[in-house]
Amino acid sequence: MLNYLPTPCLILDETTMAQNLELMKTAAYDRKIDFRPHLKTAKSREVAALCAQEYGTRAMVSTLREVDALRGCGLTDFLYSVAIVPAKFDRLAELLADDCAVTVALDNVDVAIALVSFCQIHEISIPAVIEIDLDGHRSGVGPADATRLCEIGAVLDSAGLLRGVMSHAGASYELSAQDALQACARIEAESTVLAARTLRRAGYSCELVSIGSTPTALLGQSYVGVTELRAGVFMFFDLVQAGVGVCNLEQIALSVLTSVISHNTSSAALIIDAGWMAMSRDRGTAGQVIDYGYGQVCLTDGTILDDIIVAEAQQEHGIIRARKGSGAKLPDLRPGDQLRILPNHACATAAQHDRYHVVNEQGEVAAEWPRFGGW
Amino acid sequence: MLNYLPTPCLILDETTMAQNLELMKTAAYDRKIDFRPHLKTAKSREVAALCAQEYGTRAMVSTLREVDALRGCGLTDFLYSVAIVPAKFDRLAELLADDCAVTVALDNVDVAIALVSFCQIHEISIPAVIEIDLDGHRSGVGPADATRLCEIGAVLDSAGLLRGVMSHAGASYELSAQDALQACARIEAESTVLAARTLRRAGYSCELVSIGSTPTALLGQSYVGVTELRAGVFMFFDLVQAGVGVCNLEQIALSVLTSVISHNTSSAALIIDAGWMAMSRDRGTAGQVIDYGYGQVCLTDGTILDDIIVAEAQQEHGIIRARKGSGAKLPDLRPGDQLRILPNHACATAAQHDRYHVVNEQGEVAAEWPRFGGW
Repeated sequence: MLNYLPTPCLILDETTMAQNLELMKTAAYDRKIDFRPHLKTAKSREVAALCAQEYGTRAMVSTLREVDALRGCGLTDFLYSVAIVPAKFDRLAELLADDCAVTVALDNVDVAIALVSFCQIHEISIPAVIEIDLDGHRSGVGPADATRLCEIGAVLDSAGLLRGVMSHAGASYELSAQDALQACARIEAESTVLAARTLRRAGYSCELVSIGSTPTALLGQSYVGVTELRAGVFMFFDLVQAGVGVCNLEQIALSVLTSVISHNTSSAALIIDAGWMAMSRDRGTAGQVIDYGYGQVCLTDGTILDDIIVAEAQQEHGIIRARKGSGAKLPDLRPGDQLRILPNHACATAAQHDRYHVVNEQGEVAAEWPRFGGW
Repeated sequence: MLNYLPTPCLILDETTMAQNLELMKTAAYDRKIDFRPHLKTAKSREVAALCAQEYGTRAMVSTLREVDALRGCGLTDFLYSVAIVPAKFDRLAELLADDCAVTVALDNVDVAIALVSFCQIHEISIPAVIEIDLDGHRSGVGPADATRLCEIGAVLDSAGLLRGVMSHAGASYELSAQDALQACARIEAESTVLAARTLRRAGYSCELVSIGSTPTALLGQSYVGVTELRAGVFMFFDLVQAGVGVCNLEQIALSVLTSVISHNTSSAALIIDAGWMAMSRDRGTAGQVIDYGYGQVCLTDGTILDDIIVAEAQQEHGIIRARKGSGAKLPDLRPGDQLRILPNHACATAAQHDRYHVVNEQGEVAAEWPRFGGW
């Protein structure tokens, strides 16, 4: 069914994706909490429209380009996750419309002052959340840093621009034990609620208390005071998430279709036309219990070939070998035969392609969905 | 001069690139040998046109999309480096024109038979080179495998489609000692000449004897029987090539302009808006003597900040730290200040962007050159 597609190309299994969307809906519904899908993985208007059907008008984005490209899909309440800087205010203002509100994130009082000033001069509203740094891993205010929280909160609240607080338990991707993941989810929630409480006690409004990552959103409990869950990669899942333990390989909706271009008998390798340009350079499973190299090899019907992986990648060449010590045998294939490769990291692999070939339950290509990149 | 550009974005220093193009021209000229630039790094019509001016009509490509996108730039003799499979013949045939000839690479007799048959049916000419595998690292015929060489050679030659042999010393990227690089270059040349001699002795024509990689092309000697050198990444150079020892940091023409978005004082880190989406996931310097993390940090005027590197990368966040143990101090910067980052691997970093902002000798943006991706 796929063998007329040019290789390498990106395959999206729509049935599997639909199941993944339902799974997260249930996880949020069970906790009676709003869900905000992160569109940075999919970067597709069609996926955005499905998210709007499932979850409503909220969306998280990692670039202003995503706001621009996803307007008019049913999503109207965008939260831009990367700490804003004043040079981006003009572009942001151009994106605002009756059906397109954007909330920004920040952690710096000077930026907050600049935002308030910009909004007053242009008579517009760009609300902001204060980013909370859970573990010192990147930007954000420490959840117990009441002085800095209130300093920023005061500036934003005085102009009616303080929407709330936001955190992201990025550390969850490094875990796999269920109790450690639960603890990580608890810290994410409690720290963020603490920050919100600090702001409210100081008299500032704090409507949004937003947390999330795919593992903590799926495995966390209910937490009083959290108003919103966020996640993105769960839509497609990937080998890293399987390593974390929140999906199995059959739940991975994304794969790369590739052609065998050579059989190197002397080194027991199949050479394919999916190198790192098609798979990305992401080696996210390298530090996990099961290392999949640059991807898990499957037949075109999705059958997983145990212990057959893309062991190495060059720009346009992938090198398939049996995992060392596994005793697995390479499939008997010739140049022109096709395979599908499950990716380490869906966000990184999808970003290497400009479209999804959407495959239905019958294994037929049902649609071609464009995707975009850039900033 | 750069501070009105939206970040993150890709900067190409045209003066440095011009010097790099001259350097390779001299290397080839000194050996009185033709040079075929590999366009897989640049993927730009403007760079292709500069290459046509410098080196003539030859070009190497890694995708058929490159042939399609680079027609009409002055390059007319394309060599497609990835072993061809029959499913790609139709697209290939569509690309052929009076000013666009494409030579393919293959290592398999069944593919050779299919190519000859396809060309006869469609009354077209798609010449082929036999790919030579120097070290068992991917596709190709072993240089001493006379039986397989002649089996493929006979099929192609009978239809007038055998153009020659081609090899690539990919192993050179793993080296840094000058004598090891010289030895690698010698093996590349001698093995390929051996294969050509085997074919000629069997009575088959073998006009093209093509070798190359940036390190071996720059450092190798003259070799009797080699007719063509190839290389690509030298146009921009990068930190990996600096680690191999064939350039210094000042010769790197490519960088990513980024904004500081946060200063994390507790972890002594500057957070920037260039994560792995802007830099790529390539960690090619991880195995070299100097590990640059996800890139070397510079001021916007290009001044290199010794031992200040992008230590970690998330999708849209880069984390700048002083190299451990170096004692270097972070520059005193605030959200909104800009920096430039030199990449590990120019091919991978450039592929994350859709355009070059071309900067002239005065540090001004002189042009915007689109770049393309895909297959």
